[in-house]
Amino acid sequence: MPKDSYLVGLIGSGIGPSLSPALHEREADRQGLRYVYRLIDIDVLGVPPERVGELVRAARDLGFDGLNITHPCKQLVIEHLDALSQQAEALGAVNTVVFDAGRAVGHNTDVTGFAASFARGLPDAPLERVVQLGAGGAGAAVAHATLTLGAERVTVVDALPERAADLADSLNRHFGEGRAATASPDRLAELLGVADGIVHATPTGMAAHPGLPFPAELLHPGLWVAEVVYRPLETELLRTARELGCATLDGGGMAVFQAVDAFRLFTGREPESARMLAEFAALTDVMAAPQ
Amino acid sequence: MPKDSYLVGLIGSGIGPSLSPALHEREADRQGLRYVYRLIDIDVLGVPPERVGELVRAARDLGFDGLNITHPCKQLVIEHLDALSQQAEALGAVNTVVFDAGRAVGHNTDVTGFAASFARGLPDAPLERVVQLGAGGAGAAVAHATLTLGAERVTVVDALPERAADLADSLNRHFGEGRAATASPDRLAELLGVADGIVHATPTGMAAHPGLPFPAELLHPGLWVAEVVYRPLETELLRTARELGCATLDGGGMAVFQAVDAFRLFTGREPESARMLAEFAALTDVMAAPQ
Repeated sequence: MPKDSYLVGLIGSGIGPSLSPALHEREADRQGLRYVYRLIDIDVLGVPPERVGELVRAARDLGFDGLNITHPCKQLVIEHLDALSQQAEALGAVNTVVFDAGRAVGHNTDVTGFAASFARGLPDAPLERVVQLGAGGAGAAVAHATLTLGAERVTVVDALPERAADLADSLNRHFGEGRAATASPDRLAELLGVADGIVHATPTGMAAHPGLPFPAELLHPGLWVAEVVYRPLETELLRTARELGCATLDGGGMAVFQAVDAFRLFTGREPESARMLAEFAALTDVMAAPQ
Repeated sequence: MPKDSYLVGLIGSGIGPSLSPALHEREADRQGLRYVYRLIDIDVLGVPPERVGELVRAARDLGFDGLNITHPCKQLVIEHLDALSQQAEALGAVNTVVFDAGRAVGHNTDVTGFAASFARGLPDAPLERVVQLGAGGAGAAVAHATLTLGAERVTVVDALPERAADLADSLNRHFGEGRAATASPDRLAELLGVADGIVHATPTGMAAHPGLPFPAELLHPGLWVAEVVYRPLETELLRTARELGCATLDGGGMAVFQAVDAFRLFTGREPESARMLAEFAALTDVMAAPQ
């Protein structure tokens, strides 16, 4: 009996270190599937992001079953697709394309991935008042996820007021007036004083942007802290919050669950998320922080 | 330890029934390689053969390690490659492209494949006077192979005298004056009367072109008969020749050994040809002809 065979890839910029090939391929191996996941790095190819449509068409023609799409192509790819999932349409961003009988359908598993990670890692977290720092692409996805999970109100804080306002407007249109608001960064102390938790969705804490996204004094033990950055898995923000006694969620879960959801979309098969989480931990070679 | 990963494909027209994916993928499975082989059918895509260069470039960009190329693209692809093997250059036809650090190098494993099949299946066949029927693409490849194996003289017979003359000229340029000649089909009786063997390289005997390529009376037990057609494996020509007591070679060996050689070019690993021959026999579900 021939094995079911899958060919997928990731289109984006600077994706060389991506863990997606290993995460997908090892899960496929365990399920006995033939599965190749290729990195298609537009920087390496010298292809401008505006030409993502040509890469998507070529992938369809050459027998790919689907693609993951990342920065800077998540919005640009939309006009080249035949249909969008509800979530991708609401967000205006696609991170997963599935080819089905010649049609290219866009999905967004960043939203479902963060939601699944949050539900697993902070199942009892109160969601009345949520502060979210960062209104970029990742921020838009996680704000959609948080509101989908039932957050009553998300206050979006971004150094670019217009970007925060655009995101809040879009969230209010989609989830209902009053579910989202904006605030300038100088109001963070006041907001965090009364919030249930904070979602951090800026690049601060990555190797290239070390440090804390706001002063440590603004944290307090009553807050939960959810991180989007997953390299490193233990950001300075998470370490500081844990030391204070905050409930925390690292960015690894979102990275894994977006892959879990993409794998399901590509293959129609249910991946074992626990196994993929363990694989991710092994790949990132994480040492648990001392408690 | 991650598995070595290979992505290859076949570009051509009407290739749906190709056995190449199964042959390559099963051998890769046995070697513990991650290997996906995709069919890229220009008829299905509605892409004219002249645009094969775009498909080759797209495959390179999307992470393919190599491609097989078949009718009607074996000549058309050449101008889009960065280099050719000696055999592909001499033949003017490419059936295998290997991507190496962004360069596309063309090879021809039809030539090496037929030579390997002949050496295995008819190891003691005399090669002084060989008649070859058919001067098309397959004919050119097998004539190169026969002369490479040491045939003293190959007489090319084709219903199109110009095509036969072009092939003979090219063979004489490459292998030395006098190694190849041409004759018209009405001289077949005379030629076969004194020949050591005949290579049959026309489509006659395939399901769509049933029958014998020449009258059965022209065969005699002193001739060996090598067939290029492999669907069916037992053509009417081979059955008639076997019944007469001729040594015969079916087209399956060439089909398998071109895949053996392509697999080696794609992966740098030595395939087990005996295993691939057995797999091919299983795939074609051949019953050995009664002796």
